[in-house]
Amino acid sequence: MNEAAFIAALRTLATDPAARGLVDDAAVLGDLVLTHDMIVAGVHFLADDPPADVAWKLVAVNLSDLAAKGAEPVGCLLGAGLSGDAGWNAAFVDGLGAALAHFALPLLGGDTVAMPAGAPRSFGLTAIGRATVAPSRAGARAGDALYVTGTIGDAGLGLALLRAGRTQPAAPIAAYRRPVPRLADGRALAPHVSAMMDVSDGLLLDAARMAAASGLALTLALDAVPLSDVARAEGLAVGDAATAGDDYQLLFALAPDRAVPVAATRIGRFATGSGLALTDGGEPVPLPARLGYLHG
Amino acid sequence: MNEAAFIAALRTLATDPAARGLVDDAAVLGDLVLTHDMIVAGVHFLADDPPADVAWKLVAVNLSDLAAKGAEPVGCLLGAGLSGDAGWNAAFVDGLGAALAHFALPLLGGDTVAMPAGAPRSFGLTAIGRATVAPSRAGARAGDALYVTGTIGDAGLGLALLRAGRTQPAAPIAAYRRPVPRLADGRALAPHVSAMMDVSDGLLLDAARMAAASGLALTLALDAVPLSDVARAEGLAVGDAATAGDDYQLLFALAPDRAVPVAATRIGRFATGSGLALTDGGEPVPLPARLGYLHG
Repeated sequence: MNEAAFIAALRTLATDPAARGLVDDAAVLGDLVLTHDMIVAGVHFLADDPPADVAWKLVAVNLSDLAAKGAEPVGCLLGAGLSGDAGWNAAFVDGLGAALAHFALPLLGGDTVAMPAGAPRSFGLTAIGRATVAPSRAGARAGDALYVTGTIGDAGLGLALLRAGRTQPAAPIAAYRRPVPRLADGRALAPHVSAMMDVSDGLLLDAARMAAASGLALTLALDAVPLSDVARAEGLAVGDAATAGDDYQLLFALAPDRAVPVAATRIGRFATGSGLALTDGGEPVPLPARLGYLHG
Repeated sequence: MNEAAFIAALRTLATDPAARGLVDDAAVLGDLVLTHDMIVAGVHFLADDPPADVAWKLVAVNLSDLAAKGAEPVGCLLGAGLSGDAGWNAAFVDGLGAALAHFALPLLGGDTVAMPAGAPRSFGLTAIGRATVAPSRAGARAGDALYVTGTIGDAGLGLALLRAGRTQPAAPIAAYRRPVPRLADGRALAPHVSAMMDVSDGLLLDAARMAAASGLALTLALDAVPLSDVARAEGLAVGDAATAGDDYQLLFALAPDRAVPVAATRIGRFATGSGLALTDGGEPVPLPARLGYLHG
């Protein structure tokens, strides 16, 4: 039983309506939205990433799930699996304090464990938010347009730069190490969208998931995928951008005649049917072999 | 910075009243009680413990924190750090399903990660409950009596038996692998007690924590500590029982003239002052060097 089978088995256990079948980014319990994401050294962050950036990312990836539900952060619980490196731990706490202060996110509790020797550092965060409307990823309607906030592929580029031993340009490396959850965008969008999720595992993979959860087909225009100037200058191919992970942008479906209340780019359209299709310059192009980046 | 320093640093971040200064077993957010406990192979469970028992323990130790707040379980989020052992994972999910069904605890969400090769299995659970009254561990009053439910030291005895290669007697081994959270006791006690917590790190250590959190001195009668018949038959010393971990009984303070609404044993008394003192047969005895078992 690999992780996909494990998750499928968990899904059969998650029969409560608040679980939303585990297909959504978060659980919705009354007006509360709850999410729990883990990050593990060597899987979600590089072992030599600065500890303050690891703390930032832990907070940011969880808040991104709240953003996708249009939720206002209320608090968090930390699960910390520490190595014995005192300096690292101290820098992590400092960075955590700065991140929590930045997002005005109260630390409410949690657990700390000294991991056995040689085990990778591992952190979990449970983020709790409050939302009046919490859009699902499963609500897209035939005819809806698909939009994405910000630019795509910067974090993937940043990871590739770091792996190549580069420390510049700064913007994509910051996008990888210190993603910014789109909390204000999510709150502005939530009352209007028919479906919303964050882009964490690759634009194409996550867009395909929204289409599948909504029981629809989706055509996505590769040439419309927004790349940053830096990514273009570095020669990032749109196919690589759209299949890299860690974007933490918001992906949402909206009726095509509706005004978009935030800055976003229209990249596709839903229709009856199933499956993801790509176009480039209006012409169909094949799907890449890999739609995204699955963390383990 | 070791774990104690790390937790102390976290405490300075946890200024929200709902955090209760991180001294309590759980956060209290309106009528919701939230807790997050981790269990890690080689730290909280033995690598060869049956996977279904690991799943049970993960659920039970978190529900024990809800029990200590008199809370009714509402749901949980799972953070699973898996190894690549498919059979183990399948047995864990089966056991998790059985444990969740036993406690009627809905699985609402979470995250699954394939851990890097060689990393120990690691699980976190966030348990959410609802409580009308959520007693703190800090509310004991001078003159209150200290009580504990059930018997003490069985799980510690079970761990010692397993480490010695024994598989009998069954009861202490079950106490170690499949602790039973005192949910009904917690709900019955919550409206009456002045302080309550669960015993997870050793009776003496946890009792000393309740006294310190309440700003009081505590005298505890070692000869009153309840041992099971099996523990007595195995020759378990009360000093070992009272400093072993994993009891998951409820420890509570109650005015001495109040009726006790559950089966429990009176083992001590709070007074003005500070510190823990022990007696045996009415005579003072010295504290052991180690009051409990600190997981990492």
